[in-house]
Amino acid sequence: MSLLLTGATVIDGVTDDGVDGLAILVRDGRIVAIGRPDELDVPEDTEVVDVSGKFIIPGLMNANVHLLINIFLETLVRYDGRYEDLIAEAAQVALKSGMTTVFDTWGPRRALQAVRDRIDRGELVGSRIRCAGNIIGFDGPFSPDFDGRIPGVGTGHFVDRVNATWVENTGRHLMWLTPEGVGDEVRDYLGRGIDFVKYGSNEHGGTSAGAFLQFSERAQRVIVEEAHRAGVTAQAHTGTVEGLRIAVEAGCDLVQHANMTGPTEIPQETLEQFAPKGCAATVFPLTDHGRDILKKSITDFEWTIWAASDTNCRNLVDAGAKILLANDGGIFAREVMQEPMIAATWNGLPEDEALNRLATGHFVWLRAMEEKGMAPIELLRAATRNIAEAYQVDDDLGTLEAGKIADMVVLDANPLQGAKNYQSIHAVIKGGVMVDLDALPEQPLLTAELPAALEEEARYKRPLHHGERLPGCPGHH
Amino acid sequence: MSLLLTGATVIDGVTDDGVDGLAILVRDGRIVAIGRPDELDVPEDTEVVDVSGKFIIPGLMNANVHLLINIFLETLVRYDGRYEDLIAEAAQVALKSGMTTVFDTWGPRRALQAVRDRIDRGELVGSRIRCAGNIIGFDGPFSPDFDGRIPGVGTGHFVDRVNATWVENTGRHLMWLTPEGVGDEVRDYLGRGIDFVKYGSNEHGGTSAGAFLQFSERAQRVIVEEAHRAGVTAQAHTGTVEGLRIAVEAGCDLVQHANMTGPTEIPQETLEQFAPKGCAATVFPLTDHGRDILKKSITDFEWTIWAASDTNCRNLVDAGAKILLANDGGIFAREVMQEPMIAATWNGLPEDEALNRLATGHFVWLRAMEEKGMAPIELLRAATRNIAEAYQVDDDLGTLEAGKIADMVVLDANPLQGAKNYQSIHAVIKGGVMVDLDALPEQPLLTAELPAALEEEARYKRPLHHGERLPGCPGHH
Amino acid sequence: MSLLLTGATVIDGVTDDGVDGLAILVRDGRIVAIGRPDELDVPEDTEVVDVSGKFIIPGLMNANVHLLINIFLETLVRYDGRYEDLIAEAAQVALKSGMTTVFDTWGPRRALQAVRDRIDRGELVGSRIRCAGNIIGFDGPFSPDFDGRIPGVGTGHFVDRVNATWVENTGRHLMWLTPEGVGDEVRDYLGRGIDFVKYGSNEHGGTSAGAFLQFSERAQRVIVEEAHRAGVTAQAHTGTVEGLRIAVEAGCDLVQHANMTGPTEIPQETLEQFAPKGCAATVFPLTDHGRDILKKSITDFEWTIWAASDTNCRNLVDAGAKILLANDGGIFAREVMQEPMIAATWNGLPEDEALNRLATGHFVWLRAMEEKGMAPIELLRAATRNIAEAYQVDDDLGTLEAGKIADMVVLDANPLQGAKNYQSIHAVIKGGVMVDLDALPEQPLLTAELPAALEEEARYKRPLHHGERLPGCPGHH
Amino acid sequence: MSLLLTGATVIDGVTDDGVDGLAILVRDGRIVAIGRPDELDVPEDTEVVDVSGKFIIPGLMNANVHLLINIFLETLVRYDGRYEDLIAEAAQVALKSGMTTVFDTWGPRRALQAVRDRIDRGELVGSRIRCAGNIIGFDGPFSPDFDGRIPGVGTGHFVDRVNATWVENTGRHLMWLTPEGVGDEVRDYLGRGIDFVKYGSNEHGGTSAGAFLQFSERAQRVIVEEAHRAGVTAQAHTGTVEGLRIAVEAGCDLVQHANMTGPTEIPQETLEQFAPKGCAATVFPLTDHGRDILKKSITDFEWTIWAASDTNCRNLVDAGAKILLANDGGIFAREVMQEPMIAATWNGLPEDEALNRLATGHFVWLRAMEEKGMAPIELLRAATRNIAEAYQVDDDLGTLEAGKIADMVVLDANPLQGAKNYQSIHAVIKGGVMVDLDALPEQPLLTAELPAALEEEARYKRPLHHGERLPGCPGHH
Repeated sequence: MSLLLTGATVIDGVTDDGVDGLAILVRDGRIVAIGRPDELDVPEDTEVVDVSGKFIIPGLMNANVHLLINIFLETLVRYDGRYEDLIAEAAQVALKSGMTTVFDTWGPRRALQAVRDRIDRGELVGSRIRCAGNIIGFDGPFSPDFDGRIPGVGTGHFVDRVNATWVENTGRHLMWLTPEGVGDEVRDYLGRGIDFVKYGSNEHGGTSAGAFLQFSERAQRVIVEEAHRAGVTAQAHTGTVEGLRIAVEAGCDLVQHANMTGPTEIPQETLEQFAPKGCAATVFPLTDHGRDILKKSITDFEWTIWAASDTNCRNLVDAGAKILLANDGGIFAREVMQEPMIAATWNGLPEDEALNRLATGHFVWLRAMEEKGMAPIELLRAATRNIAEAYQVDDDLGTLEAGKIADMVVLDANPLQGAKNYQSIHAVIKGGVMVDLDALPEQPLLTAELPAALEEEARYKRPLHHGERLPGCPGHH
Repeated sequence: MSLLLTGATVIDGVTDDGVDGLAILVRDGRIVAIGRPDELDVPEDTEVVDVSGKFIIPGLMNANVHLLINIFLETLVRYDGRYEDLIAEAAQVALKSGMTTVFDTWGPRRALQAVRDRIDRGELVGSRIRCAGNIIGFDGPFSPDFDGRIPGVGTGHFVDRVNATWVENTGRHLMWLTPEGVGDEVRDYLGRGIDFVKYGSNEHGGTSAGAFLQFSERAQRVIVEEAHRAGVTAQAHTGTVEGLRIAVEAGCDLVQHANMTGPTEIPQETLEQFAPKGCAATVFPLTDHGRDILKKSITDFEWTIWAASDTNCRNLVDAGAKILLANDGGIFAREVMQEPMIAATWNGLPEDEALNRLATGHFVWLRAMEEKGMAPIELLRAATRNIAEAYQVDDDLGTLEAGKIADMVVLDANPLQGAKNYQSIHAVIKGGVMVDLDALPEQPLLTAELPAALEEEARYKRPLHHGERLPGCPGHH
Repeated sequence: MSLLLTGATVIDGVTDDGVDGLAILVRDGRIVAIGRPDELDVPEDTEVVDVSGKFIIPGLMNANVHLLINIFLETLVRYDGRYEDLIAEAAQVALKSGMTTVFDTWGPRRALQAVRDRIDRGELVGSRIRCAGNIIGFDGPFSPDFDGRIPGVGTGHFVDRVNATWVENTGRHLMWLTPEGVGDEVRDYLGRGIDFVKYGSNEHGGTSAGAFLQFSERAQRVIVEEAHRAGVTAQAHTGTVEGLRIAVEAGCDLVQHANMTGPTEIPQETLEQFAPKGCAATVFPLTDHGRDILKKSITDFEWTIWAASDTNCRNLVDAGAKILLANDGGIFAREVMQEPMIAATWNGLPEDEALNRLATGHFVWLRAMEEKGMAPIELLRAATRNIAEAYQVDDDLGTLEAGKIADMVVLDANPLQGAKNYQSIHAVIKGGVMVDLDALPEQPLLTAELPAALEEEARYKRPLHHGERLPGCPGHH
Repeated sequence: MSLLLTGATVIDGVTDDGVDGLAILVRDGRIVAIGRPDELDVPEDTEVVDVSGKFIIPGLMNANVHLLINIFLETLVRYDGRYEDLIAEAAQVALKSGMTTVFDTWGPRRALQAVRDRIDRGELVGSRIRCAGNIIGFDGPFSPDFDGRIPGVGTGHFVDRVNATWVENTGRHLMWLTPEGVGDEVRDYLGRGIDFVKYGSNEHGGTSAGAFLQFSERAQRVIVEEAHRAGVTAQAHTGTVEGLRIAVEAGCDLVQHANMTGPTEIPQETLEQFAPKGCAATVFPLTDHGRDILKKSITDFEWTIWAASDTNCRNLVDAGAKILLANDGGIFAREVMQEPMIAATWNGLPEDEALNRLATGHFVWLRAMEEKGMAPIELLRAATRNIAEAYQVDDDLGTLEAGKIADMVVLDANPLQGAKNYQSIHAVIKGGVMVDLDALPEQPLLTAELPAALEEEARYKRPLHHGERLPGCPGHH
């Protein structure tokens, strides 16, 4: 069966402007033709959808999400054996939010691949997933790389199982190996079905805010070569100007959160390498409003970090680096969302300025980069074509062109007239099929309502139970 | 239908010796008659079971178990919403081990009562449960009374819900109240359906090995009075000689682990109050073999504690206190059982000398007290009649007498000729019904086998991942 | 030599009003006579000091100070071997602030007694000290009663030595003993030269905000009896309504911070026992301004505690309890004073509303109780005669009467016309000697200026060194 | 004045054998001549010392000591302001143990330089010191690089001051900088008077057993260039095969503990670079006896680390790398030495097999490398000439040759006949002066006897005070 969308302004992502009154003909999941309705050869059984006055853009993409971002012992125990369900829920939240393809850059490989394949086979509705599994060199969720308190609280049996599930053969022990040894492990891991390789140029965190280097320059080159030999892209987690430079020089296809380099701005030498080397850059920007709020609650020193990250965003754009939308987007369980730090989006920003929410953070990204001066069409490309190119899936995705997969978002308002208009989602079409947005997520787990409080909870007076001292009483625990 | 057990030696717990060749006639769950087979008036439809050469004793009881002893965040999350299933499993493990009635002295009240009632109504096979719910004055599982690390790791939502579920209106805040205020809360709690009241005379633990007093002498008297006014028994958790004395003087019907009084032996004055006041004493004894093992691994000071606890056991017997079998018996999940401290039964004792295992600890108790000189028939009574009397259920339970509920254990070997013979369980009859021991537990959860290791677990090398230092490297974390 | 003070208004603490124009004649450290100058028989060699227009009151006293309040590992290491010097410094700070006698209710006994004796012998200038040594039942500074983190950080050698120095034979192990056993230890401790006995009715802190009971009612009676048998007074640290009631009933001569009873107000029954039993009550009041500030930063529940403490203050006054000024006053090292919690006076109050500063807290106390309605003369007595009576040193101290020790404070403004006038100290006379206030403390240690910052400190950027994560980065340590 | 040593076997470190019966003539601190006594031109005022039957070797050197190794809050507080005294004490302990020159590779720069200069000027007796100050890139003693618990326990004032004192401008923030930025800081630091540069190729510790890379290859080259430009040597702290390779390739003059590369043996490629690049290697070997003991107490995985370190030692020797004696030698305060982990020399080895004791560890080193097959004369050179060459002080030190500084050790037994003979120290001559060994250390601080226990310590029963639970009681803190 075929589908014909008529009457809309089509912003195909190829040309710089939208064109009014075009129709898009879709068959077998792909775009057959885009043109004046009278120019199109429309089969008999075609369903015609009139979207007059709307705006059709390529399906949005996200270069960095974590469909299973939860590292909480509680969540991982509660959904033990159901991680695929959590990933499916997140893939549906993403799709509902206009993202027809997401790149999962850290998570449990087996479960991610299983959901990816079910979606690819049409057994499950959801955003198209491409995934890296573990970040090469990082330890599991219950480790100093993420939450180092848990090995002392969870059972060894579960802690080890979870960590092994995430890490497999790619954890911290790779730091002890020769570059060749690292290469062997990466090759093994590639053989397990990941879609691209992500590795740590800098460490994730732990003792020094992520500034250590995880792999030497030689080891990084070996990792990238292994990825390219396997025909997939390679990317790096970076956090310092040296970590960034090394990753770019090692031949990475993209670098993550390239603007986050601590208090030091990216040197000109490195900025100038992005374009010639064809290395794309995801950035994590703040909106101006977010910056204003943040500045009030942090130290002068911390502000230098945010100031540098802002300057880096602008400089990367100016240097002609291919910029990608990305936000570490993920969803937390409702009870986790009540925890003060997470309720406060880590940095004290309100929900509508928080970058890392899966359902909304990409809209924040678009507004933030609009404020930093990116042209409207470049914003669109950062969320579509650039990502497709960086991940080398641009034969199928990223623009509205005949022959490409029919991933589209229909908006009520013109996105080229304001980034805020990306939120005016009217419809989402994925693989040529109109998505029933209201039905998503089909099986709310993390996003389900919490059970009502027990009667006894009201009487249980926490302050008197949890061992706090009386106010005014000296001493520590 | 009726049941006739024939040919066995019957040790009824009333007289001091067993009598050979008696038959026991059971109908409608109760014992109709015990006598020579030819003296009995046996109905037509009676099922006759020949247990010649066996020994029939009253169903064993346990004055202190915890059918849901798990305080591990992991376990309580994993079985969230299924606590009744865990309790049912434990009640079946207890029954399989010969215990037809157990007294649960700390646990989640609602779930315990629900399982109790299902068993009482015959909907579920399991040991008969009578329960106290929370120990009045104690905080919940995720608190300094049990595991004070969890409030910093679990979500506030879950931590509060679990604590409230255990504590309801009876937690630490009662320490702030007047005795009358404490009485009001106890009365309220009694109205919720508990079978007896347990309160803290000493605290559970925390900062001083349990030596603080939880309630004043006046408050303890008020608590006991409230229990008695409601027609139920009262008991105390004690841990020091003063905590013990106060509880006995307050009118408790029984005191728990009366022999555990730290490094100080119970004074003669207190010993002499048990019998006249009709206060029963549970004790937690070690076997001689257990003591030998323990002594090697502890400090001299710790040994004074164990030495005092041993002397207390003997002195309580000598003072004529009514001694009850009890052991804090409970079951842990398999993965929890792998944790070193729990695998080592907390004190480094091997499994077959460990008191607190639900399925076997009562056998250890019997052997231990046999070694301390209790007469064979007194051992039996400690595990049957004494408990029934102390909990005031001796109209129905505790001995083999016409009119009582037909709870019986059939042993292959004579328990009066060696406490080890209690383990030779041939059959268990509860309420006149032969229990299918092989079928228990019907739904293994905590006792189920663990899933096989994942392939990746073998490659995940824990020592290199969990942040330990290289051997020989100075510094702390 | 003799001293004659002339021209002042004398507020002797006996009568309810001040009398203008009286002279006070002092010889050999005691008051010889008070009267009209022309009525006095003044020896030849008398030094005459004209204090016309001033106000003379008895030397101020404080019923609860801690001359060595530091429990910081750093401070106790730094001044190891010099604790007497720290106590001397504090005694001089106290004297400079108008307190001619202070009762130290917790500290290292040997050092306190040594300084006490040097001051008594006239070898050292300082406030007269009377001390309790350890609080019977409490553990040392490096324990859960005070700072439970230190045993894991300090060497066992030093941790044990400090704790033993404070605790000697009177620590937490007394909780394991029978009342008679506790009595033996108290008697032993009394033999070491303490001036009065202080014990814990409630615990100091730790797991339950101080609500546990440290000793049974019987044990408390034994402790009080031992003190009285030795001819000294007894007092209790209390924190709950039951802890307070038991202490009063046990025959204590005074109870500390009687108004701090958690969220529960003192019952009428207990209030009514103070006066007939002759039990004095120290209270820790807040000023109205302090209360306003505090309310903004605490939870509703915490406010119920402060509200109850306020009501208790008023009710104790109304019930005719003998009220004593007390404030846990002590001094911290300058670097400790920079620690946020201590800089914020534990509760976020500004310095001039903070009760527990040694040099100023007693002035806060007087203003706070004035606000709560105490009559001006009763305020004075709370700071002088009442304390002398409660500690049974009123033969010598507490009022201006012939025969008593000549401890006096000369004020510029009339204290009966406003509690704030107590701060207008013109002169302090102790034992008949005019104190050189400007010279105190003679050897500033804790109150000394900190050394200037090193050049390198400016460049050492703490946020980047101490392992904090980059802002915005998920994960815990 | 001159000194003539006669009658000994002289092992000059240049030739491969000792020569009997030579005399050594010393004047003005240097060796004037070595030869047959009758060949020497001996001035009149020469003091002649007959050391017939003894063995004279060059003064021993140590390529890696820490004269102030204490990172304990307690020690650094106790000796605040006296760090020079601690360093002086350690320099005297070193000298007494035969080490006439030591290279301090991590410590507080100002204090080290001050003591160094006093010794150089002859104002203080002690081993000659050459020092690096901080390890470039490492944070201070109270940080995750050493003891990350202290910032939560010490005052911010002291913690910052100590860290700044060690770190100055060279701490972890350098990881954020560009290589040029790192170079600027190193140049600045060189200007402060250090004798050589040490930097982290791998991190010190923290979250991953030291496997992270601290600096990129480019940054390491810049650091080495800055050192060489300033005319001093450069060295690296390494811990992985990549960290080691990068340091050697960056042009380091020596690498520390080159044999410690975790579970991975050094690849042949790297081994082969040492000799041509003139990079010396310190190694930390175990004796066979130490290895036997260690193996019993560690896991199989940990053993792979020690096995690799042993293989590395042998392979480095075989590859012709210049091997240097080094041991992280330092002294801890007596009370610190009582702490279980330190008393057990970190790894459970007995004192006489422990490498890192300042007074004895170099003897362990010599025995251990003898066992691994180093020739006797090479052992001597590892402890003398090789070190002098690696640190480029061989014009003055390292062998017994006319013109060199007269640093010598006189042994009772022949070191070429067994490494154990190095312990038979008869005399030490430094700069031509006979050292009075019995007088060292002149001012024992860390090595002083502890004060006797207080009477009260015996009664203070730690197990009952420190909040441990009763044995057998479930729950965690």
